[in-house]
Amino acid sequence: MKRKITLKQIAKELDVSVSTVSKALSGSKEISEDTTQKIQAFAKLYNYRPNNIALSLKNRKTKTIGILIPEIVHHFFSTVIRGIERVANRRGYNVIVGLSNESFTKEVINMELLAGGSIDGFVLSISKETLLKQDYHHFNATIDQGMPIVMFDRVVSEVECDKVIVDDQKGAVKAVKMLVEKDCKNIALITTMDYVSVGRLRTQGYLEALQDCDIEADPNLILKIDDSLDVENHLELLENEIETFFRMNKNIDGLFAVNELYAVTAMKVARKLGYSIPDDIQVIGFTDGVLSKHATPSLTTVSQHGQKIGEQSANLLIDRLEAEDSEPDSYIVNTDRKKDFIKMVIETEIIERESTK
Amino acid sequence: MKRKITLKQIAKELDVSVSTVSKALSGSKEISEDTTQKIQAFAKLYNYRPNNIALSLKNRKTKTIGILIPEIVHHFFSTVIRGIERVANRRGYNVIVGLSNESFTKEVINMELLAGGSIDGFVLSISKETLLKQDYHHFNATIDQGMPIVMFDRVVSEVECDKVIVDDQKGAVKAVKMLVEKDCKNIALITTMDYVSVGRLRTQGYLEALQDCDIEADPNLILKIDDSLDVENHLELLENEIETFFRMNKNIDGLFAVNELYAVTAMKVARKLGYSIPDDIQVIGFTDGVLSKHATPSLTTVSQHGQKIGEQSANLLIDRLEAEDSEPDSYIVNTDRKKDFIKMVIETEIIERESTK
Repeated sequence: MKRKITLKQIAKELDVSVSTVSKALSGSKEISEDTTQKIQAFAKLYNYRPNNIALSLKNRKTKTIGILIPEIVHHFFSTVIRGIERVANRRGYNVIVGLSNESFTKEVINMELLAGGSIDGFVLSISKETLLKQDYHHFNATIDQGMPIVMFDRVVSEVECDKVIVDDQKGAVKAVKMLVEKDCKNIALITTMDYVSVGRLRTQGYLEALQDCDIEADPNLILKIDDSLDVENHLELLENEIETFFRMNKNIDGLFAVNELYAVTAMKVARKLGYSIPDDIQVIGFTDGVLSKHATPSLTTVSQHGQKIGEQSANLLIDRLEAEDSEPDSYIVNTDRKKDFIKMVIETEIIERESTK
Repeated sequence: MKRKITLKQIAKELDVSVSTVSKALSGSKEISEDTTQKIQAFAKLYNYRPNNIALSLKNRKTKTIGILIPEIVHHFFSTVIRGIERVANRRGYNVIVGLSNESFTKEVINMELLAGGSIDGFVLSISKETLLKQDYHHFNATIDQGMPIVMFDRVVSEVECDKVIVDDQKGAVKAVKMLVEKDCKNIALITTMDYVSVGRLRTQGYLEALQDCDIEADPNLILKIDDSLDVENHLELLENEIETFFRMNKNIDGLFAVNELYAVTAMKVARKLGYSIPDDIQVIGFTDGVLSKHATPSLTTVSQHGQKIGEQSANLLIDRLEAEDSEPDSYIVNTDRKKDFIKMVIETEIIERESTK
């Protein structure tokens, strides 16, 4: 039996980072020639074949899609997976899921592991750490080796591939404008502090909508939650922050929250403080998960259509894989093809329920 | 940087096998003292640093755990994954997830795909179709080939491996007895029609608790929901069934539901019919998910400790993998070892919230 070595093992043995190994093997100019030679020699010694992706593509279809996502206990990502699965099943493909846990290194390792023969292509959403580091070599190396990638939700312009995104900002604009139309005068925002995440775009949407309606944004009406906090397990902290926020801003009559947990928790706190929803305060959340549907009152929310995102991503990937089959090598060799990459925007939609008038 | 010498190079230089070098460096008694001294001296001379790679290469270890589960958009399974991940990360393992979608064929395909080089062992929960077919050859074949499996939640006696289960029946007994202690006289049950699933054990627990308390079970107080129905998307059907059930049984003062969706939906319907919870009807659900926590009133529930199940499963698997490393082949050859398989029962716990007095 042939021995197999992984990027992680090479990195450990040579006392360099996984990223360095990965870059050296893909011939990146960022790594010194000396280091590159050392890594390549070691890899060769242990039969590590950096180009086995391209080989497997030609010779051995696995009919399997690799999904690489930041977390799994997350309603949005799990509905995306459901959508990918639905299309994959219909079109005769199988699905395997790798988790980055928002870590750059885990993303690189999983990518290598899956690409090493288990799958034909990726549908993925980038980890927060990768976005912070802005190091996308592993995506580009995978694509250069002939394995197609479709990115969804968290995408970057530095990687040329098919992309499926949600119009987060526009979704937020729609929500806030709806609150204005429903006669809210003092619309609060509960958002995240993390500016890598989609919280940023939704906050921009809130500000844009106010501007469009000639309402001056009041910084006191914006509550930023530290989303590095595991709020699911520290619900009282979240409740306390929101309670203080309501007590300091008794004029709030509308609220837009960038996720459903904040929205549902805010409704609970507001009720406790004696407000009636939607009579005193109207509330709109973002993401249509189980909480929105089952909350009391049920929550009006901006739906991201996670399942549709998954379905479209899977269709784009499988189309790409099957186009390759009919024109072998064109994806790899013909650079003109790269101009054909599709960026698909899935429109958000407001689902009106009981938390608005 | 000084070039480092490898086991393979030492072996070549001294004209012995890599295995001999590896054993000599780890001080194995299998190797003569003379040879051991020679190899150790040579390794020292060339600054050989002992490391994991060569060891793990021997058995072609990927340091990756394959998780195979029926569905992913499911709070219980996703918390189990979180638990597996937590332990895997701590112990230096990676995780890949395959989904059977409750299909036997997909389970077999995924198993073959993952076992074919991507992973060292499985943590899995059996698909409904496999349980119906009672065809477990793929599990046994995988184990016979030397790849360990840990089964959780849905397990079968036909496969000899480590298992982690929840005491579903005992959990249900505890819940129903708590309702009796809290003075409920007419305790209803909302359960599933599907007798493959855990609904069966929870129903048995309901009946057992009533018997223990000398209360005669009333078939009218048992509502069986067709769980092949996608209730998440047909909520009104579920609500209508429960409404009819309440209207026909006005004496209900306690309710045990085999999952949190049924419990939360029943509370909503009960409120609509003018009942106050917990004053008129006390409610206990099963599975501690986001719905239980955020429902109004919040739901008293039997927690299955999904994360703990995941953590214990991962520990059992990694213990097994690392025991193999120290005693090669014993797992495969020594049938006595099979007697050592562990069946771990994770106790359920009732989390009291506002839906009970």
